[in-house]
Amino acid sequence: MKALMISALVASTVMGATLADEAKTAGLKPIPSNAKALEKLTSNPKNPTTSAKVELGKMLYFDPRLSKSGLISCNTCHNLAIGGVDGMTAAIGHKWTANPHHLSSPTVYNAVFYSQQFWDGRSPHLEDQAQGPIQAGPEMAASKEYVTGVVTSIPQYVARFQKAYGKDIKITFEKVADTIAVYERTLVTPSRYDDFLNGNKKALTKEEQKGLKTFIDKGCATCHNDIALGGTMQAFGAVAVYKHLEVGDFRGDKNGMVRVPTLRNITETAPYFHNGQIATLSEAIKEMGRIQLGVDLNDKETTEIETFLKALEGKKPQVIYPMLPASTVKTPKVDVN
Amino acid sequence: MKALMISALVASTVMGATLADEAKTAGLKPIPSNAKALEKLTSNPKNPTTSAKVELGKMLYFDPRLSKSGLISCNTCHNLAIGGVDGMTAAIGHKWTANPHHLSSPTVYNAVFYSQQFWDGRSPHLEDQAQGPIQAGPEMAASKEYVTGVVTSIPQYVARFQKAYGKDIKITFEKVADTIAVYERTLVTPSRYDDFLNGNKKALTKEEQKGLKTFIDKGCATCHNDIALGGTMQAFGAVAVYKHLEVGDFRGDKNGMVRVPTLRNITETAPYFHNGQIATLSEAIKEMGRIQLGVDLNDKETTEIETFLKALEGKKPQVIYPMLPASTVKTPKVDVN
Repeated sequence: MKALMISALVASTVMGATLADEAKTAGLKPIPSNAKALEKLTSNPKNPTTSAKVELGKMLYFDPRLSKSGLISCNTCHNLAIGGVDGMTAAIGHKWTANPHHLSSPTVYNAVFYSQQFWDGRSPHLEDQAQGPIQAGPEMAASKEYVTGVVTSIPQYVARFQKAYGKDIKITFEKVADTIAVYERTLVTPSRYDDFLNGNKKALTKEEQKGLKTFIDKGCATCHNDIALGGTMQAFGAVAVYKHLEVGDFRGDKNGMVRVPTLRNITETAPYFHNGQIATLSEAIKEMGRIQLGVDLNDKETTEIETFLKALEGKKPQVIYPMLPASTVKTPKVDVN
Repeated sequence: MKALMISALVASTVMGATLADEAKTAGLKPIPSNAKALEKLTSNPKNPTTSAKVELGKMLYFDPRLSKSGLISCNTCHNLAIGGVDGMTAAIGHKWTANPHHLSSPTVYNAVFYSQQFWDGRSPHLEDQAQGPIQAGPEMAASKEYVTGVVTSIPQYVARFQKAYGKDIKITFEKVADTIAVYERTLVTPSRYDDFLNGNKKALTKEEQKGLKTFIDKGCATCHNDIALGGTMQAFGAVAVYKHLEVGDFRGDKNGMVRVPTLRNITETAPYFHNGQIATLSEAIKEMGRIQLGVDLNDKETTEIETFLKALEGKKPQVIYPMLPASTVKTPKVDVN
């Protein structure tokens, strides 16, 4: 059985093209192994990444005082300890409010590689995206003025903004979001899969390579492509209706298009689908085959693909938990209501 | 004025006793500067501190999956980034429920030095304390079975328990709490004040020394003593009623006694008093003088004491944010209701 799989793999590549080449032809791209190339790829030319901005952005990312209640930080729903998500079916925010469209929190890891942000793709980049949840009523529920009020009330934050952007920086809400985005741009997780696409033929096991081949051959890479293996807008339920679609559920953007989730670290981001109604990866794979590709993936194919997806578990950046500066008497009072 | 203060200070110590000696006579004790001595002091002989337990305890401390909702970790209310507290007047937990007795979350930093845990002192040590909030309905709301169900469903957690306690370890709820406590025992924050009591006469400025003297002379150290500058049970409102006591407020244990909060890092743990109704340190100092000591501290004395208290800001241990192992299909489902 194993020998057969390997033969099949060899057969598919004897014509000269390696599996890595085939993957690239299918639109898959690795995270660059070269640090400079990676930084160039992830940095925003209009707001270049610097260590001062990254450190400040990390502080803001973890600071619950940016929320109206003082209890919810970016990290609450995009928790870097558990795959950059919250493990919920629908996100829970201010006053324990569930996301009104039953949407689960997408992972922040590798979100920099997305072409669009949010499930409906309404945001072009992380700088814009970061402004949303802070203000959204069912999430952090803070006004722009509240956020700038908090940050400017804390002298150490002001000093860090000046260090990051120059003495004359005006600390606006947008600048706070920009800085959080700079931090998020560093949250990439290279994996053995990237090593494989970058030329190390032994980085994936034969079984994982077989899974990658099945992934490509079945058409998964049609939507789950590029560096994120996701991140573009695609029609959801292209050939059949999702079996767990519920009343009130998110139905995509105005054209019914949905931003494809990354498959990187997918083993850490259950439950699956936009409304978190699928608990296991194998069920998610089969349902995707059925509603997007019109194929009934059998157990063998599903296992092959799952084996490949597990190889997308990446190495997380080390995070030194920030020690945040104390509030002052000028810091706006929190409001849990 | 400054010269006068210093003369007064010198005058008080010419008889042979230094200010550090006087502080010790008043019941104040430093965090030991010697690492071995500190470890001996903070380790639980029945469950000695080891690096394997500390690392596992840290993971559990930060893991929101120990709560019924999957959203609340120990760190949510005892946030190591903001002084080991949540900055709230009353703690908010499961289903956005406020603490029914209007109690704010005490800091976890230096809690190892307390003689009693919880505001009413009902718990003798951190191992016992850690069991409380995980199970409390308005906090993490998880049953013992739920917690052990989560931990034992994740193979990497099981392996770490075995590494920490031996292959035959039975993973009980109590063992989870014990392990969290081992981590909490490491959360101590030595400050310049400790250097001063440990013999470095220049570790505190003259103004801070003057403040320490006033702190002792006015009687603050009667309750705020020992290593934590707090941690024992004392009558609250001994000579007058607290001006912000509200209907439904916590009134102490069955004898009306309240566990004295630590003053370490007090600049980071506003708002003050058990119900968080006092916003500033100066107001807190004056109110304490009035209701506990029967003295009206004037602005000068208040400023002196405040200057001293600021010197209790300690050095926090560096925290590498844990990357937690993924849930499995066996992991109990979260329940936000």
